[in-house]
This record gives sequence, structure tokens and C-alpha cells, in this order.
Amino acid sequence: MASSTVAPSVDWQAFRSLFFAEPELGLSLDLSAMRLADDAFDRLADPFARAFDDMAQLEAGAIANPDEGRQVGHYWLRAPATAPEPAMRQAIEETLDRVEAFAREIHRGERTAANNELFSDLLLIGIGGSALGPQLVADALGHPDLDRLRPHFFDNTDPDGMERTLDGLGAHLATTLVVVVSKSGSTPETRNGLEIASAAWAARGLDLATAAVAITGVGSHLDRRAEREGWMARFPMWEWVGGRTSVTSAVGLLPAALQGVDIRALLRGAAACDTATRRPELRRNPAALLALAWFEATGGRGAKDMVVLPYKDRLALFARYLQQLVMESLGKGRDLAGNEIAQGLTVYGNKGSTDQHAYVQQLREGVENFFAVCVQVLEDGGAPLEIEPRTTAGDFLRAFLLGTRQALTEAGRRALLLTLDRVDAFHLGVLIALFERAVGLYASLIRINAYHQPGVEAGKKAAAAILDLQRRALAALAEADAPMELDALASALDAVDRQPTLYYLLAGLAANGRVARHAGGQPLDSRWSAADS
Amino acid sequence: MASSTVAPSVDWQAFRSLFFAEPELGLSLDLSAMRLADDAFDRLADPFARAFDDMAQLEAGAIANPDEGRQVGHYWLRAPATAPEPAMRQAIEETLDRVEAFAREIHRGERTAANNELFSDLLLIGIGGSALGPQLVADALGHPDLDRLRPHFFDNTDPDGMERTLDGLGAHLATTLVVVVSKSGSTPETRNGLEIASAAWAARGLDLATAAVAITGVGSHLDRRAEREGWMARFPMWEWVGGRTSVTSAVGLLPAALQGVDIRALLRGAAACDTATRRPELRRNPAALLALAWFEATGGRGAKDMVVLPYKDRLALFARYLQQLVMESLGKGRDLAGNEIAQGLTVYGNKGSTDQHAYVQQLREGVENFFAVCVQVLEDGGAPLEIEPRTTAGDFLRAFLLGTRQALTEAGRRALLLTLDRVDAFHLGVLIALFERAVGLYASLIRINAYHQPGVEAGKKAAAAILDLQRRALAALAEADAPMELDALASALDAVDRQPTLYYLLAGLAANGRVARHAGGQPLDSRWSAADS
Repeated sequence: MASSTVAPSVDWQAFRSLFFAEPELGLSLDLSAMRLADDAFDRLADPFARAFDDMAQLEAGAIANPDEGRQVGHYWLRAPATAPEPAMRQAIEETLDRVEAFAREIHRGERTAANNELFSDLLLIGIGGSALGPQLVADALGHPDLDRLRPHFFDNTDPDGMERTLDGLGAHLATTLVVVVSKSGSTPETRNGLEIASAAWAARGLDLATAAVAITGVGSHLDRRAEREGWMARFPMWEWVGGRTSVTSAVGLLPAALQGVDIRALLRGAAACDTATRRPELRRNPAALLALAWFEATGGRGAKDMVVLPYKDRLALFARYLQQLVMESLGKGRDLAGNEIAQGLTVYGNKGSTDQHAYVQQLREGVENFFAVCVQVLEDGGAPLEIEPRTTAGDFLRAFLLGTRQALTEAGRRALLLTLDRVDAFHLGVLIALFERAVGLYASLIRINAYHQPGVEAGKKAAAAILDLQRRALAALAEADAPMELDALASALDAVDRQPTLYYLLAGLAANGRVARHAGGQPLDSRWSAADS
Repeated sequence: MASSTVAPSVDWQAFRSLFFAEPELGLSLDLSAMRLADDAFDRLADPFARAFDDMAQLEAGAIANPDEGRQVGHYWLRAPATAPEPAMRQAIEETLDRVEAFAREIHRGERTAANNELFSDLLLIGIGGSALGPQLVADALGHPDLDRLRPHFFDNTDPDGMERTLDGLGAHLATTLVVVVSKSGSTPETRNGLEIASAAWAARGLDLATAAVAITGVGSHLDRRAEREGWMARFPMWEWVGGRTSVTSAVGLLPAALQGVDIRALLRGAAACDTATRRPELRRNPAALLALAWFEATGGRGAKDMVVLPYKDRLALFARYLQQLVMESLGKGRDLAGNEIAQGLTVYGNKGSTDQHAYVQQLREGVENFFAVCVQVLEDGGAPLEIEPRTTAGDFLRAFLLGTRQALTEAGRRALLLTLDRVDAFHLGVLIALFERAVGLYASLIRINAYHQPGVEAGKKAAAAILDLQRRALAALAEADAPMELDALASALDAVDRQPTLYYLLAGLAANGRVARHAGGQPLDSRWSAADS
């Protein structure tokens, strides 16, 4: 039967025109269910021309992060020859070599734990960009039988959470390598994690310095401490690599190499995707197509959420990773000209088909406040067991993806389909680089700085003031000769306008035995005294 | 210093009027930063009166799920005496006793694995409501040193993901107890997981039936299989308990009891919260206050997302759990009168302070499409190490919560603060019951059926048709005497309008060696043949 005898369906033609495939990347992108306006490509041609130019300048070393006066160089990490200065190229290449050499020495036992045994586990202490990339890589590419070191994380300042992680290490603590990651070197959560780890090591008669590695800015507080204490190694973070795009720097590569991941393949995948997404041709550039889809779906103002549904357990953390990459980059209150805006692109999701059983009900029938990005992986992995005739568990997974996408489309919802050949280091590199570039291009479309995060300072400053208030409250209670009511204490601390905050601080201290709470009529009427009074 | 000398601040008075505490529940709720309209309580008094009445009728056994003609009985699970029929009460109480007895027998070694050793691990096979509750409980209350059985999950139909879980069990597979959960007994993901587990057991010369327990509807396909194969035990799911509210049924209680959780305390917490949230007084009912906050923040139409940020590692899955409970319950396309609507309440979040480093930038400065629900836990747990003078890691966690909330509030964003005394079985029961009731009350406010999920069928049906198409494609290719182009195959299958779907099916089959792909000019121009041709 010759294909010419088949009347081509309109859908198929529409599909062909909105389907992009790059076999060398093992990637395809299908915009056919995004309900794009007929004029979208024409209308956005000029903005994209400018965006391609912006990205070219960024890659050439322009100050693409003007507020912080910084270059933006994560693309150089996988193509060092493109770095604008020879010193940068050299730093990237040397660091990569050192990362590989260090991991090799650990794996071969040329560097061992204090008990002379091979290192068995890896504890990464970091938060945000210093943890999300490593967590994504570890979960996407790890395997319990193959990991050279088993990964664990401190990614918060929850003492209970850290204790549970330490207890999970158990006897392996003595053969655990600790990687502490903080660009500034003074992130409180990370510093706290380091202190708690140090205490745990010391409690077992061990010196954390003999098992610790720092990844941090040269000369940072953490860097100086690591040098002073003689840590095993120090790796640099550069001011031209932001935390949320640091996964192809030592931040992502060192833990990955230690775990046993082929980091050269990860970099090759990212570099190959960079080459493809550097093309100044909208229809031949998958990152531009992604950015176009975002722009059209959200009106260029974040009017819809992006629901990310990878149908693959190994990519279950991808949406969490994207929450940072996308939301911290695009969620801005001012554009490049300083005008007040309220931009962003909300991201959430876990994995399919699991999430179908959680909230596809709302996606199909409820409030239409989203577009979906379904991620398909062609290679199933696992056992090819036939559960029904000629039908495997992987076939079900694919059918659920395609069926759900069809159901969403029929209900008028938008759904983009991204397909990867498989989940391995190369393709994860492709995926990471694809979204990095899409974020950069989209930021250019909406004229924002994607590389700063001015909005996170306010909460940090407020937290510092709150800790100060707590210290003063503890001091005041220690000196008081009788239990105090809240408003009296607030008055004594010159904090009458902060009584709610003071209440929560005291309630927390009391729950942990650090102040005494004397019940009043209502919880807010409690009186408070020093714990020993 | 007498408190009367302090001028009361307006903020404090506003705070007091919007702060609800119930010490017996170890719970408080603070709506002071929700920017509620002055008239909100008055305006919603009548709708809430009706909602309280609706809930009373529901608890009395009304057909609260009219589409499916079902009663809605999850509240009876923790107060069996309130069940409308003696047989229900008896079934609940007997099942609970059997759950406890079974767990005790496992723990004491009165029932052992096939090798006569104690069971060491637990593999729960389920998805959606049959996995999210158990996962939440396991993560919130588990501890590596204290768990009687270590929990693992199959919650998808990803063969690679299942293999990785099995490989993680390793030698423990022989002492792993398998709990298969499916209300209908025919959920494909769960059935597939069961088949893959059976094959893995068989590959080690073991019979899964000797280590398996079913939790399913009486007489379901799974129930009959378990009976036929002589599984260790079967526990019932009832048609009056929905999957997303099944965590206080055997679905949540059996795995929890096996892990070593005090399930009576979990039930006591839920029952105590039910008592408080049954009060027909808006200002004295924390679930009603929560529902009021949702209504006011979202205009009663899901116009804002709910960002759930528990500042506690143990509650990192809570937002995922709520995605199902809230979105599947509230995301509806028709109201009770059959009018077309587009309702819902989008939920996302992971944990603080971690997420501050991911997307608080957008929350504070970017698109204002959300309100936050911060969850504070007073008791820190872990080591009370002083990291700065008089300042612990837990103090930082609390200060980050309060500081971020302040920063959000100053930027005009809404943030509700829910405080729990600690994370233990009792308080987790409180938390679960609180949100269950809030969902029920809110559903009444917006006049929808919160207990059905008509929108999930379309995707399932589409997936079944897609699997059928794949089987027919495989058969057609097996009979073809030369590689076929896509449109020829589509025509032969009478599926010319389904070429995109057919393309993805073939691409997936080819990636797994089950058809042969012959490259054409473009990926879409490939020709296809049977794998062995």
C-alpha cells in the first residue's frame, strides 16, 4: 500500500509542522497540542531575533546580570573554549580534571576514610541551587547496586531531619565523604548542617575535616575554614555561575562523579543541546520552541502554571529542579528597564502516571490555570515482562501518557510533549541545557534579568532580625524575677508591634524546654519565664 | 512592668481576632496575614451554616456522593460509633482489630517469611489514594532505626522504577512483606506492579502469595485472586471510603502498623480534630476557618494556587498528599446542580526553608497567583546544638518561616500559618482530618460533589484504545512483507486520524527492540517493520 493513496489528515500535517526532532540529541518536542495561534511564529519572530542576539552576547561574556554586574557563564562549563577569557577556560578545565581525579582517587582507595576503609557514602550539605541539581542527578542516574558512593543530603536546617539522615548512615558514618556546597560560603542552612555533621563526627571520635570537601567561592568563609582545617579538597564556584545553573559546574559534577556517573557524558549532552539551542532559527531551535510555547500559553505574563509530568520514576525530581530554575529566574518584580511588573512561571508536578491518580481530575475538568509539559522516555528499562499479550508495564506507561494528553486536549487544555530516547547522563545533560536556554530566551522575550534574585533578601533580613529578637527575649526572661505576659515582654524589648512574632518564638522555645510557659486563659495569655525559673 | 502600661497595638488585636488555638489538638491557625475582607465572616455565615448542615447529613449517612450513589464515611473510621449502621461499625472495629493483630503477629514472628526469618521490609503496591497516604505516614513518622519494617513503594507502572526498587531490596526481598492496595482491584498500575513483583519473587524461587496481603474491595478481582492463591491476609476497602480519604482505613493503617506507627494515636488525633471541626461555629472550627481562608483568597473559584510549605522535613510529602485530597476533590467541571463550572484549588510545595531557595523569589516579587500555607512545628527534635549563642538549627528554621512570611506579607501576599505542637501519630491524624474537613466544607460552599472523580475516566479509556492500537500495529507489522511507512500503516489500521499517536507507539516499541525502525529523511518519515524482519 503506497502512502500516496492515503488522504493526509489535517491533524497529521499540523502535527508535522509543530513536531521538532533532533535525533543526535535523542530529543523531540511536540507543540501540536499547545493550541498555538496561527500567527504565533510570525508575531514572535522579531522578539526571538532579539533574544537570540541577547543570548549570543551573554555567551560572548556580556554583563548579562546587570544588577549584580556579572557575566553569566554556565554555557562555558560544557564548552570551555567558548569562555571569553583564557583564565576562565583554564579554570573550568582544571576544575573538571581535578573533579575526575579526586573521584578516581576515592574510588580506587588512594584516599580513604579515617579507618582506612573505602568511602561508602556521600553526604552533600547544601540548599537550593547547591542541592537541587545534585539531587536530580543522583536520583535520575543512581542505582542501589551500581552507585560507587550512596548519596544522602542535608538540604535544610531542620535538626530532626538531619538527625534522621545521620541515623540512616549509622555505622557507615565513618566511611562517609562529606561535600559542603555554598557559593557565598555563609548560607546559614548549610553552615548549620556543617556544624551538626561536625558534632556527629566528633561524637564518634572522628574529625570531619578528614572526610570533608568544600565547593565554594574562592576566599569565602567556608573556603578559608576548609583551608585552615585541612579538608581533603576544595573546588571553586565562580561568580559567573549562578546557583540554579551550577549543576554542570563542580556543584553537580563532583557528587555525580563520586556516585559513579559519567560526567563527561552529562557535559557532552549539555554541550550538544547548547549547540542546537544556539541556532538563531525559531523553528529549528528546541529551546526557542519551548519558550514560544510558554509565551503563548501564559500570555507572556505567567498567567498559567506549567505542570511538569515526566512519565519516568527517575525524573520524579525534575519538576522540583525546574521550580528553582524557572521560578527564581522568571519570577521578577521589575523588568530590565526598572518598570514594575509581576512576572513568573509557576511550576509543579511529580511524575506520571502517578499524578494522574492525584490531580488529573482537576486538570481535565477543573480550573483551567495551567498547561502541561509531559515528558516521555522511549527506552523503558526494567524487565520487559508481558503483562497482557504483547503488552508490557512500559507500554501501559506510554499509553497512559498519550491517553491523558489526549483527554486533556479534548477538554481544551494545552499539553506539550517532550520525548527523550532514554534517561542517562547524556540525555539528562540535554534536558538540563534545554530548559536553561529556554529560560534565558524567555527572559529576553519578557525583558527581565533572569540571573539575579533580589526578592530573597527580604526574608533573610527579616529572619536575622527575628533571631535577634529571640536572643533579646531570652536575655530579658533570664533577668526577669517573675513570669512575664507577652505584651510586657514586648514592651521591655521595644517590640510592641511584633507581638505575634514574639508569641511564636516563645511558643517554640517553650516546646523545646528553653523557656517556661505558664498557661493563661487563652494560649495568647500565657506568661513566660526562663526555663530554670 | 504591668501589661496595662503598654498601648495595645492594632496589629496585636487584629492578630488575636484571627488566631485560633486548640491546645488539646496541639494546633493553632493564624489567619492574620490572609488579608481577609472585614465582612468575610458575616458574608459567609449563611453558606457556612449550610455547609455545617451538609456535613452533619454526610456524617449521618446521607448519599453525599450522589453521582455514584454513595455514602461518604471516612469520619466513621475514627469514631465507629457514629457510623449510621451497626454493620459498618462492626466492620470498622473488626478490621482495626485485625490490622493490629496482623502487625503484632508479624512483629513477634508468629508469621514469618518463607525462610522462617522475621519480615524485615514492606513493599506497598498501590497508586493515588492507595499510595499517597501510606507514603505520607511512612515518611512523617518513620525512622531508620525504629521502623519495624522498612517501607518501599511501587506507585507507578514504570518497569525501570520497579526494578530499581527491587534491586534496592536486594537480599531482603526474601523477607519482604508485600501489601497490594487497590479499591477496585483492577487498577492497571497496581496489577502490573503485582505481576512484576510476582515474577521477581518467582525468579528467586519464592511464591509471592506466601508474603502477600491484599487491601481491596470485597469480591474484587484482586480479592478473589488473593483468596484463590492463599495470600497471608485480606483487608476490606468499602465503597463508602474514597481513595483520597482512605488513610485512616486499612489502606493507611496496615502499612503504618507494620512499620511500627501507633495507629490508635493517629486515629485519636483524627477523631479529636473531627470533634473540633464538627462545631457549627465558624470562628471556633479550624476546618471552617481554613475553608474560609481558601474561599476568600481564591474568590471561591480557585483563582489562586495554594503553596503548602511545611517547615519540617518529615512533612515534605504533605503537599503531594494534599494535591490529591484537594485537587481531585475540588477540581470539578460541574456543580451539584449540573451547571458547567471550572472549579478547583491548585496545590504545590515541598518544604521550608528549602523551597525559599527555590521559588520564594517569585512568591515575593513575581506573579501574584497564590496564597501560602506555612506549617510550623513547635517541637524541633534532633540535636539541640547551639550554633550561635542561644541559637539552634531549629531556631533558624522557625526564624526563616516567620521571616519569609513577614516578607511575603509586606509584599502584599497572603500567608496562612498553621502550627502543630509536634509531628507524631496523633498530630498527623489531626492534620489529615483538618484538611479532609476543610475540603468537605469548601465543597459545600461552592456547591460541588467532592467525592467523585468523573474526569479521570477519559484518559483511562483513551489509554485502553491506544494499547489496542498498539497491539493491532504489532500484528499488522508481523504480517507485512516489507517495512511500512507510517501513513500506510495508519491506513491499514483504519487509524489515519491517529498518526501522531501511532508514531509515538512505534518509536517506543523501536526503542525497546520490539519493532525495527528504518530511517527516512525525517524521523517522521521512518519506515517500520517487525523486530525480527
